[in-house]
Amino acid sequence: MTVRLPGREQIEETYARLRPMVRRTPVVEIAGGDLGVAGRVLLKLELLQHTGSFKARGALNAVLAMPDGTAGAVAASGGNHGAAVAWACGIAGIEADVFVPSTSPMEKVRRIEEYGATAHIVDGYYATAYEASRAWAEGRPVLPVHAYDADAIIAGAAGVGIEIGDQAPYARRVLVPCGGGGLYSGTALALRDVMPVVPVEPERCPSLVSALAAGERVDVDVSGVAADSLGAARIGERAFAVARELAAEPLLVSDDQILAARRLLWDECRVLAEPGGVTALAALVAGKVDVRDGETVVVVISGANHPTIPADVVAPVSG
Amino acid sequence: MTVRLPGREQIEETYARLRPMVRRTPVVEIAGGDLGVAGRVLLKLELLQHTGSFKARGALNAVLAMPDGTAGAVAASGGNHGAAVAWACGIAGIEADVFVPSTSPMEKVRRIEEYGATAHIVDGYYATAYEASRAWAEGRPVLPVHAYDADAIIAGAAGVGIEIGDQAPYARRVLVPCGGGGLYSGTALALRDVMPVVPVEPERCPSLVSALAAGERVDVDVSGVAADSLGAARIGERAFAVARELAAEPLLVSDDQILAARRLLWDECRVLAEPGGVTALAALVAGKVDVRDGETVVVVISGANHPTIPADVVAPVSG
Repeated sequence: MTVRLPGREQIEETYARLRPMVRRTPVVEIAGGDLGVAGRVLLKLELLQHTGSFKARGALNAVLAMPDGTAGAVAASGGNHGAAVAWACGIAGIEADVFVPSTSPMEKVRRIEEYGATAHIVDGYYATAYEASRAWAEGRPVLPVHAYDADAIIAGAAGVGIEIGDQAPYARRVLVPCGGGGLYSGTALALRDVMPVVPVEPERCPSLVSALAAGERVDVDVSGVAADSLGAARIGERAFAVARELAAEPLLVSDDQILAARRLLWDECRVLAEPGGVTALAALVAGKVDVRDGETVVVVISGANHPTIPADVVAPVSG
Repeated sequence: MTVRLPGREQIEETYARLRPMVRRTPVVEIAGGDLGVAGRVLLKLELLQHTGSFKARGALNAVLAMPDGTAGAVAASGGNHGAAVAWACGIAGIEADVFVPSTSPMEKVRRIEEYGATAHIVDGYYATAYEASRAWAEGRPVLPVHAYDADAIIAGAAGVGIEIGDQAPYARRVLVPCGGGGLYSGTALALRDVMPVVPVEPERCPSLVSALAAGERVDVDVSGVAADSLGAARIGERAFAVARELAAEPLLVSDDQILAARRLLWDECRVLAEPGGVTALAALVAGKVDVRDGETVVVVISGANHPTIPADVVAPVSG
C-alpha cells in the first residue's frame, strides 16, 4: 500500500498560507549543563501556539481546505485537537462539533466550548467518541477532521519543521513528542534534507515503536501521564510511512522521566508544559540521546493544556 | 545631586561579559487582536532567564565585579533578587547570605537555598531584613548587592534593552514593569537613542509616579498582588534620574488589571508569569497605551516566581 505524503512544495505553500494566522513560535537556547546534558539545547516553544499546542497548525489547514458547501467541521478529541478544530472553525466562520470522551478533564471541555464549538460528551474513551463523531457526521455537510492521520494535518504541522530549519539550521537533530505521529511526520518531512527528526513516545503509548517492531501498524494499549495527548492506539498510516522511509529511530520514555522533565523545565526555564509536551525533553534529560560538546539539539515542547492546572493556579494571590 | 549613570560603552561591555552566562531570552509576536488591542505585540520572555527573572543579569554583573578578597555577597530580598544573588554567587564560587523577611513565601526561601545560599529569616518586612543584612555585613569581607539602586545592577539589566534593540529594532516603544526601577532604567539607557521605554507600576506600589509628582524621591506605602516583586518603598536614585532625564511617562495599573493580564497571558499564550511580571502587559491590555494599527510594541514579561504555584502544579497527574 502506498501512501501519498506531502511534498516540499505543498509544505511550503501550506506554511505561506497559514503564516498570517499562526504564531511563529520562538526558540530559546539553554546551556546543556542547565539540564544536565552536554551541548546546547534549543527549546522550540510550540506550546505558545494558538490553543496551546501545535495542533492549531494542522487543524487550521484542514479547515481552510474544506470543500465548498461545508457547513462545519467535526472532530473527536479529549483535548488539544478538539480545541484546535474549535479555534480553526472560529477563524473560518463555520460550526464545530467536537465529540469528547467522558473521561476527558472538564477543563479541556471548557476550552473547546470557549472557542465556540459544541462539545458532545460521549460515555467512554476516545475510540467511542470517534465512532460517535463519524456516525453523527453521516449525511451532514460537515468535514471530519482527523487528529493526525491526514495530509492537511501533517502539512500544517510541518510548519514547526520549517521554522526550525530557519531558526536553527546549524542544529544536529530535532527531538519531537510522538503520539499519532502528526507532529513527527510533518516536522520530519519539512526537515528531511536538513537534519534528522527523532520521535519520542511514552513507554505506555508506544504506537510507533510497536509498529516498527511488528513491521506493520498494530493496536497498542495506551495509558500513563501523557495518554490524554499522545494516547493514539495506532500510529497514523502516514507517520508510519515516513518513519520507515526515513529510517526513524524512535525513543521511549517512562512516566517518571516525563514528569521529571516537566518539573525540570519549570524549575530551570519557567516553562509549564503538559506531560505529553515534554516527552522529547525527557529523552534528552534521561540520557537517551548522544549529544557531544558543541553540538546543538532542538527539542520541541509541543503543548501546555494541563489536565490539572488553570483556575487555581492563576487565581488571585493574597495582597 | 548628580548621579553617574552607566553609559553606552559600559552597557555594551557589560553585555558582552555576561552573554556567555545569561540567556538571550526570546520574543514572540502576538497579534494585537489576541489580546484585545490594536497593532502587534512582541512579548519579551525574560521570565525564561536564569532564576526566573531579569534579576539574574544585574546580580551576576555585580558579583563578577567584586573587589579582590571578597569572600561572599550579602543581599536582602524576599524573592527574585535573593535567588539571583544566590545563583550568581554559585557561578562566581563565593558564599551568599540572603536576608529574607519572615513575610516572604517559603517557596521563595526554598529556591534561594537550592541555589546554595544561606537564607536568614528576619521577623518583619523588607526594610527590617535590609537593616539586618547591613548590620551582618559590617566588618565582614562581603559585597552587599543592592536589589536595584546600583550601577552594576542597572548595567546588567540593560541587557534586556540591548536584546530588544536587536530583536525588534522596528518597534515603536517598550513597556516594562517597574518597582525599584532597575529594569526600567537599564532598558531605557540601552534604548535611549532607539525607542522610548515606558515604566509601569502597580497602583499600590507607586514609587516612581509619586517621586515624579513630588519632584523628589519619596517613601510610599506598598501593598497588593505585586508587592513581593515590585514593592520598593522608594524608587532608586538612578532610576529617578533616568526617568527625569528621559522624561518618562509612567503608567499605573490596578491589582485587578494585573491579575486579568496574568490570566489572559496564560489563556492566550500559555505563559505563566508572576503578578509583578505582567504589569506592563496589564497597562497594554487595560487600554492605557495608544497603539495604532501596524505598530509594534514590545512588552517585557519580567518574572515567574510565583508565591502560590510550583509543587502542586507540577506534581504528577493521575495516569
